[in-house]
Amino acid sequence: MATLIDGTAIAAAIRDEVRAEAAQLKSRYGIVPGLATILVGDDPASATYVRNKRKACAEVGIQSFGYELPATTAQGELLNLIGELGQRADVHGILVQVPLPDQIDEKTALDAVPLSKDVDGFNPANLGVLGVKGQRPMFAPCTPQGCIELLDRSAIQIASKRAVVLGRSTIVGLPVALMLLSRDATVTLCHSKTVDLPSITRQADILVAAIGKARMVTADMVKPGAVIIDVGTNRIADPTRKSGSRLVGDVDFEAVKEIAGAITPVPGGVGPMTIAMLLRNTLLAARRQAEK
Amino acid sequence: MATLIDGTAIAAAIRDEVRAEAAQLKSRYGIVPGLATILVGDDPASATYVRNKRKACAEVGIQSFGYELPATTAQGELLNLIGELGQRADVHGILVQVPLPDQIDEKTALDAVPLSKDVDGFNPANLGVLGVKGQRPMFAPCTPQGCIELLDRSAIQIASKRAVVLGRSTIVGLPVALMLLSRDATVTLCHSKTVDLPSITRQADILVAAIGKARMVTADMVKPGAVIIDVGTNRIADPTRKSGSRLVGDVDFEAVKEIAGAITPVPGGVGPMTIAMLLRNTLLAARRQAEK
Repeated sequence: MATLIDGTAIAAAIRDEVRAEAAQLKSRYGIVPGLATILVGDDPASATYVRNKRKACAEVGIQSFGYELPATTAQGELLNLIGELGQRADVHGILVQVPLPDQIDEKTALDAVPLSKDVDGFNPANLGVLGVKGQRPMFAPCTPQGCIELLDRSAIQIASKRAVVLGRSTIVGLPVALMLLSRDATVTLCHSKTVDLPSITRQADILVAAIGKARMVTADMVKPGAVIIDVGTNRIADPTRKSGSRLVGDVDFEAVKEIAGAITPVPGGVGPMTIAMLLRNTLLAARRQAEK
Repeated sequence: MATLIDGTAIAAAIRDEVRAEAAQLKSRYGIVPGLATILVGDDPASATYVRNKRKACAEVGIQSFGYELPATTAQGELLNLIGELGQRADVHGILVQVPLPDQIDEKTALDAVPLSKDVDGFNPANLGVLGVKGQRPMFAPCTPQGCIELLDRSAIQIASKRAVVLGRSTIVGLPVALMLLSRDATVTLCHSKTVDLPSITRQADILVAAIGKARMVTADMVKPGAVIIDVGTNRIADPTRKSGSRLVGDVDFEAVKEIAGAITPVPGGVGPMTIAMLLRNTLLAARRQAEK
């Protein structure tokens, strides 16, 4: 029976650390870390994400500046706003909530965020150095960094281990593979074109699932004792719930937990870590300004 | 008995293509592709590399501008030169030969080359997008691109194949792994901290060795029928040669060729491809300017 990797508890510990350091930054330098959030349009899910991030900021002493723009916003307007926020000394991080409306090119908008304020860590210039030993990006992307942090704070060795990552998105799969590599794991990256996936996943000491398919990692795909990090959040029908649905990961948790050595639940695993890493990146940005 | 992948012949074919396209660019737009080479100091090996590159340029109708600076050159002077060359319309590519003397920070110097003229493809911003399907860097780095080209021009399928890359340098191992990934291979990246390497290399349909150890890939590490790309160039003692030494790859060629399906020799495999790719990147830079 696997040890449960409790992302909620680990994220709470990190938020406590951020809160203490933010207080110190304020008392020592008079600097309050600031995060600007930009929400374009009225997608309810995006609005919820932004609200949760701002709430999390408030709880740890990070000031948040919310910008809500209409769905009809022209790309130029958004770029102007990002440009202004890039200049402001009280804004240390800028978060552009995706997806953006069709008239705005997502890559152009995200690239407009100055590297020094890209607390989401999505810039491709960040991606490049993630896999390079001894180099560090300005900011590591939040979800992949959250996966690594879960391993570290559970005292799970990464160096020399076989790591298999399922999914190669630029948001999770690819950066987490590069980060595991830079930590000396032997990394295999699998994806939709991979042949005989189970024979590969069964070699993994550390298996990261970020493929977006509900419970596709079954028990026969897991080596006994392996560490399972489940990044998936998939909504499936569940008539026993009042809502009629529930969230599950990319891993068949109930079956896999019987043979894995350690496993993250969904929800309560990687999810809470993403916001915790965003807070820590914002703190880091403010600290860099203080120490300049 | 493996098919020989003849890098010398494939590189010659590519040089012919570059020559024809350079002539067309000249007749149609009056543009002669131009490569500036910068050599700092008097390392004889570096001088030879630069001389070979300039000679290769001349052979295909690329104009080369050679800059030879003394070993005592200050970093600021080098940066000024790079800045000037960055402005010049007749210089489409800038090549800074490494290693540089101690007083010059290599990363600072290489980063000073404008992305649009970085025909070596070493910029970390290029590295990031290599692994992203559907995205392309401004210029792919020459040696990794040469490896892919050898596979393509030998009609070797990459998609869905198991690829294992030995070595994770930012010059070869890491970018070639990312390029194989973007071509839908399932990629495992191995390095000095990898445990039980032979069990992993034996799974490879395509094995790229870029680890810098003479003949370390032995026959027992290779799956029958596998395709072997040997990036290594190691000089070993050979009393039967007049020079007393010879070049060998990272692969034990004589033994491995008996079981591999296809294999590159050393010399005459990946080596000639690197300069061919540099020529093609320079042509590409000039064509981009013509079509602007």
